[in-house]
Amino acid sequence: MTPHADPQTGAAVKAADRAHVFHSWSAQGLIDPLAVAGAEGSYFWDYDGNRYLDFTSGLVYTNIGYQHPKVVAAIQEQAGKLATFAPAFAVEARSEAARLIAERTPGDLDKIFFTNGGAEAVENAIRMARLHTGRPKVLSAYRSYHGGTATAVNITGDPRRWASDNGTAGVVHFWAPFLYRSPFYSSTEAEECARALTHLEDTIAFEGPQTIAAIILETIPGTAGIMTPPPGYLAGVREICDRYGIVFVLDEVMAGFGRTGAWFAADHFDVVPDLITFAKGVNSGYVPLGGVAISAEIAATFDKRPYPGGLTYSGHPLACAAAVATIQVMADEKVVENAAAVGETVLGPGLRELAERHPSVGEVRGLGVFWALELVRDRETREPLVPYNASGEANAAMAAFGAACKKNGLWPFINMNRTHAVPACNVSEAEAKEGLAALDAALSVADEWVA
Amino acid sequence: MTPHADPQTGAAVKAADRAHVFHSWSAQGLIDPLAVAGAEGSYFWDYDGNRYLDFTSGLVYTNIGYQHPKVVAAIQEQAGKLATFAPAFAVEARSEAARLIAERTPGDLDKIFFTNGGAEAVENAIRMARLHTGRPKVLSAYRSYHGGTATAVNITGDPRRWASDNGTAGVVHFWAPFLYRSPFYSSTEAEECARALTHLEDTIAFEGPQTIAAIILETIPGTAGIMTPPPGYLAGVREICDRYGIVFVLDEVMAGFGRTGAWFAADHFDVVPDLITFAKGVNSGYVPLGGVAISAEIAATFDKRPYPGGLTYSGHPLACAAAVATIQVMADEKVVENAAAVGETVLGPGLRELAERHPSVGEVRGLGVFWALELVRDRETREPLVPYNASGEANAAMAAFGAACKKNGLWPFINMNRTHAVPACNVSEAEAKEGLAALDAALSVADEWVA
Repeated sequence: MTPHADPQTGAAVKAADRAHVFHSWSAQGLIDPLAVAGAEGSYFWDYDGNRYLDFTSGLVYTNIGYQHPKVVAAIQEQAGKLATFAPAFAVEARSEAARLIAERTPGDLDKIFFTNGGAEAVENAIRMARLHTGRPKVLSAYRSYHGGTATAVNITGDPRRWASDNGTAGVVHFWAPFLYRSPFYSSTEAEECARALTHLEDTIAFEGPQTIAAIILETIPGTAGIMTPPPGYLAGVREICDRYGIVFVLDEVMAGFGRTGAWFAADHFDVVPDLITFAKGVNSGYVPLGGVAISAEIAATFDKRPYPGGLTYSGHPLACAAAVATIQVMADEKVVENAAAVGETVLGPGLRELAERHPSVGEVRGLGVFWALELVRDRETREPLVPYNASGEANAAMAAFGAACKKNGLWPFINMNRTHAVPACNVSEAEAKEGLAALDAALSVADEWVA
Repeated sequence: MTPHADPQTGAAVKAADRAHVFHSWSAQGLIDPLAVAGAEGSYFWDYDGNRYLDFTSGLVYTNIGYQHPKVVAAIQEQAGKLATFAPAFAVEARSEAARLIAERTPGDLDKIFFTNGGAEAVENAIRMARLHTGRPKVLSAYRSYHGGTATAVNITGDPRRWASDNGTAGVVHFWAPFLYRSPFYSSTEAEECARALTHLEDTIAFEGPQTIAAIILETIPGTAGIMTPPPGYLAGVREICDRYGIVFVLDEVMAGFGRTGAWFAADHFDVVPDLITFAKGVNSGYVPLGGVAISAEIAATFDKRPYPGGLTYSGHPLACAAAVATIQVMADEKVVENAAAVGETVLGPGLRELAERHPSVGEVRGLGVFWALELVRDRETREPLVPYNASGEANAAMAAFGAACKKNGLWPFINMNRTHAVPACNVSEAEAKEGLAALDAALSVADEWVA
């Protein structure tokens, strides 16, 4: 399929949207949602015949791109066979999805509790940790996002928490390593790692280890800025958790299922958490699905004692069939390997080359198809191109950058003073290069805001 | 499709389930999930060739039965066209689903915020109410269920709350009307209504009206026992909410979309809440979907100020396409009217007739395809057939009743000392009668436990 103009349908879709759809994270009267007519692979198009290269993968979830024919066919087949069935039963697609996921999770995380998405996965992981340990508190990082439901948003670090923050009962935020804006005044990755672990140890000591159920971290924080932890950090956290009997939860909702060039980001660090939360890439979001992969020890806690959590669509057959097909496609078409290779040979070198030429780029960091460009007013002071959580006039520089990307046919991921290059995991070399060229042009606009 | 035996596949499905699937609300080591091979309309079957009439509609959600060909076709078509797209965009299926839902909601609840299911709908409704009023507390009923995420489970009244109850910060539970087990020692519906409203008024007065953001009620409580509120109660709650500036939320996750013989249960009471939460019946759960219908006044609060909540799969195109098709099928095939008629002419009279003959039946109550039978040891004292939240030996009577239903080809909905007759809204008269016959036989088993 290719774009063709149909502005009349577009206007009708837009009108019904404006009349009746209440959008996520938005001032409903100030938004102007683009009406999307279709999508395929790494591209989508509107009703005016404009086509965009999607460097966002939706919200970093369409890891195999749009409309993969094999996954579409699997959804169609399952719909015709058994679209839905209640969670208390054994259903083929559910069993098979759990088996394929468990095969890929590290260590003995071989039991899968399915949810509808990432937030519910986090809610249930925290509940499991609290009941497993009998302790109340959860430690999470300030630079993080974990979802929109009450527990998930309260452990979140980014400003999306604030409006729903009721005093963070049972939640303690700490600082994870981030050398470019080091909370610890470090000058090397090794120093940042050591100081971040000391900070975590100290925080635990003062909170009281016996009050802490879990430490949750995005293996590589996503929307908060794609800060790959320094070597040794996650292993250090694992060791601390073991020492104090704290459950270690890795949130792989965004980083999992190929994004980093590995099935799970944890694979890069040779670390096995007690729980992994996932969603998004597990079936590229073709049908809503998330879940928790559970260690044998935590699963055993609920062997004789009922697990007090659940949901109507847990292990939804249609969503699970999409996961089975997605995982098979990723294996057969070497999508994970492609993500790693594109990162290593195209996106990494290409973004670093852009950084050399554009004074607005303060840092390039990432791996696989998971890259952040930190845009700054001043490379020396590292002052962000726009202030933290800016909107309106204060955010003009990033708005101009975004508009320039779109003008150049690229749909960009923008969060605060950063743009993330997060295309599909099966993006081609040529598409990645096309994206780099559009970023090159848009960064010239950002450069105009450099002090 | 009809059942045929394939025990080998069944065993494989079951083995993978036991190895890898962690089930909702269950002691993982004590359950023995039936492997389901297929389903159609009001029936499903296992791999041994056993076929069951489903008097549960899954978890009271497959309102149009299993595998409705028109909805299956719509899912297949949307999958081939645009399976998924991010929530910030206008998408035809999303716009159309919102429009069709808004057409059916009462009053000016014309903006739809989509979620993946009921729990997230409740989470977001409560967030909207708190931000709209600037007040912290939510009042909810003890006999209720609102979902499994933190806020939803904390406002829940039933025992599924307990393990996740962190002291119910911001939550106050009160008693809603229930004449059969009246908390107010009433002897008539009118008295129960008046006393329940006084109780609510008094609770508000002592909590402080200016601290209360919302009152949330299931319009007709579902899993908690299908207690149709007496005439005047919901209108009374509406009037109280108006007087104190409290947001009135009706949870129609289970009662909505045909279950009671109306599009929304609120329609029976001529009451317009400020927010309605929905899920399940909106698309018969063929694809996970839920949402909040929002009044013009509350929507306007987020016109210039961003609504601080959201999720990756909000307004998922595949789920919305299933909703569009489901609503069209329900309209075209008069499914809502069928639910009303089957309730009035078959289930209501039939269940009351069973109650006359079976001493274990203490009360029959309900409407549409939404009926509860209260099983008791003694009709005079109304002592429940099993104690509240019983398990193991203490629950033997209900376990025996359930086993008898299954032996007679009926899959029953059982909660504590109740069985609910909650078939699909398009159940036929003949199927409803078949269900009544199986219940008749199983109630003879329950009768053996009568004191």
